[in-house]
Amino acid sequence: MNIRKNFILSLCQMKTTSNKETNLKRAEELVTSSVKLFKSNVVVLPEFFNSPYDMKQVPTYAEVESESTTLGFLKNLAKSLDVYLVGGSIPEKENNNYFNTCYCIDRSGQVVAKHRKVHLFDIDIPGKITYKESSILKAGNQLTVFDTEYCKFGIGICYDIRFPEYSQSLKNKGVDFLVFPGAFNTVTGPLHWELLQRGRALDNNCFVATCSPCRNTEDPNSYQAWGNSMVVDPFGKVVSSIGYEEGVLQSNINLSLIDDIAQQIPTFKQKREDVYELKKI
Amino acid sequence: MNIRKNFILSLCQMKTTSNKETNLKRAEELVTSSVKLFKSNVVVLPEFFNSPYDMKQVPTYAEVESESTTLGFLKNLAKSLDVYLVGGSIPEKENNNYFNTCYCIDRSGQVVAKHRKVHLFDIDIPGKITYKESSILKAGNQLTVFDTEYCKFGIGICYDIRFPEYSQSLKNKGVDFLVFPGAFNTVTGPLHWELLQRGRALDNNCFVATCSPCRNTEDPNSYQAWGNSMVVDPFGKVVSSIGYEEGVLQSNINLSLIDDIAQQIPTFKQKREDVYELKKI
Repeated sequence: MNIRKNFILSLCQMKTTSNKETNLKRAEELVTSSVKLFKSNVVVLPEFFNSPYDMKQVPTYAEVESESTTLGFLKNLAKSLDVYLVGGSIPEKENNNYFNTCYCIDRSGQVVAKHRKVHLFDIDIPGKITYKESSILKAGNQLTVFDTEYCKFGIGICYDIRFPEYSQSLKNKGVDFLVFPGAFNTVTGPLHWELLQRGRALDNNCFVATCSPCRNTEDPNSYQAWGNSMVVDPFGKVVSSIGYEEGVLQSNINLSLIDDIAQQIPTFKQKREDVYELKKI
Repeated sequence: MNIRKNFILSLCQMKTTSNKETNLKRAEELVTSSVKLFKSNVVVLPEFFNSPYDMKQVPTYAEVESESTTLGFLKNLAKSLDVYLVGGSIPEKENNNYFNTCYCIDRSGQVVAKHRKVHLFDIDIPGKITYKESSILKAGNQLTVFDTEYCKFGIGICYDIRFPEYSQSLKNKGVDFLVFPGAFNTVTGPLHWELLQRGRALDNNCFVATCSPCRNTEDPNSYQAWGNSMVVDPFGKVVSSIGYEEGVLQSNINLSLIDDIAQQIPTFKQKREDVYELKKI
């Protein structure tokens, strides 16, 4: 059994506004606090942390990678704090296409992974919530992972967590920790947000963390994120969670739990490839 | 959209003893009550309902199919009550092999499905629970489904629910309702029993029901089942559940929820076969 190097993860459940500069400043404050106050090694920002979660406004806020203010900000921040940064997501423009994109930055300020949301959030629960990301966004087409000295991370964005095949495929690529910047809503959040994280963690013998924007109680007509950013361990237990207000949540990650549980409930050795197909990708 | 024919399902969370005759008599009383009192159309019994859940005693209690008292009992009971019966499970003997077997009986008293537990319960959580079904049992090797005028059912037994691939394969065979007779324990029950059911239901857009024996508070040295038999709808919501005492739980099954949720959160149309492999079996 390998000796695992434990680490501290922080989730920045920040408030997002319609002012990009304000959002970047707030992100900087929370990420900096995570490192200075809690000695975090890996810090996560929420989905669409630099702009409102509103498809109509995507063209206004989207940035082209080569000249992206936000990407430059993330790289500088990670390097200056010597921390891994899972940069939530931002609206990205490439040619005439828009994407919901997560940049992951290492301690030297280099981009180590770029995830474009694979499953666009198109749902229609009449009278409760109707949303159609595909009205403006284009979907990514890659499984996203990156290595660190702690463990291998897999990245998805929000709705990606609803697809068990996506997480299983990341598991097949050897990930120990799934991170989903996300912004569930107050309709599906109560029943599904925690359930999906705990299910993915237990089924795939890995840690799962989500990072949401906080609820926007000042503007009830804006998109209301569920909040409740959390970390779940591979036994399916919620390690730490935060309500719906703004805050920074710190978790000590004990990676040896992955090996312990794999030994105690060894489902990955007990699968029946003779009875059903096992996923390869 | 097809018109679905709703139905009433009952779970008999019965007490099992070391006396097979007593167990069959009790099963008869509870199944009969389910039909007479609650007008149930489908009734489920627990795992190992006719014998103690104790591997050492399997050779004593196991029955050969061709001369099985318990199978005859189940067939007569289903026919006389005009009800579908998911006959929990019993220890079965074939040649020199033992199986953990579920017989499903239709309203005419015919066996419509036979499931032998595919994943044997071998776990080792030091100081808490160590169990090794494979010390005596042999595993089955089939995906088990059967059709009724209501919907298509898929059957697993207890530990089978831990394997997402098993439920996904049943879903691929068109099931609307997964039924797992089971006997989780008081170590893994609190965190995993409900989680696994809700996860399988949401991920596979189907109903899930489990049926456990009740807790054996009179003999604390015997295997202590978690109880908490329940029905979960395809939104991942617990429709009804019962604590750990003996009882009969009745649920009205509104099958149109399957179609409603498939339309509202259409993940099965949104899967990305270009990014990851989809299971075929």
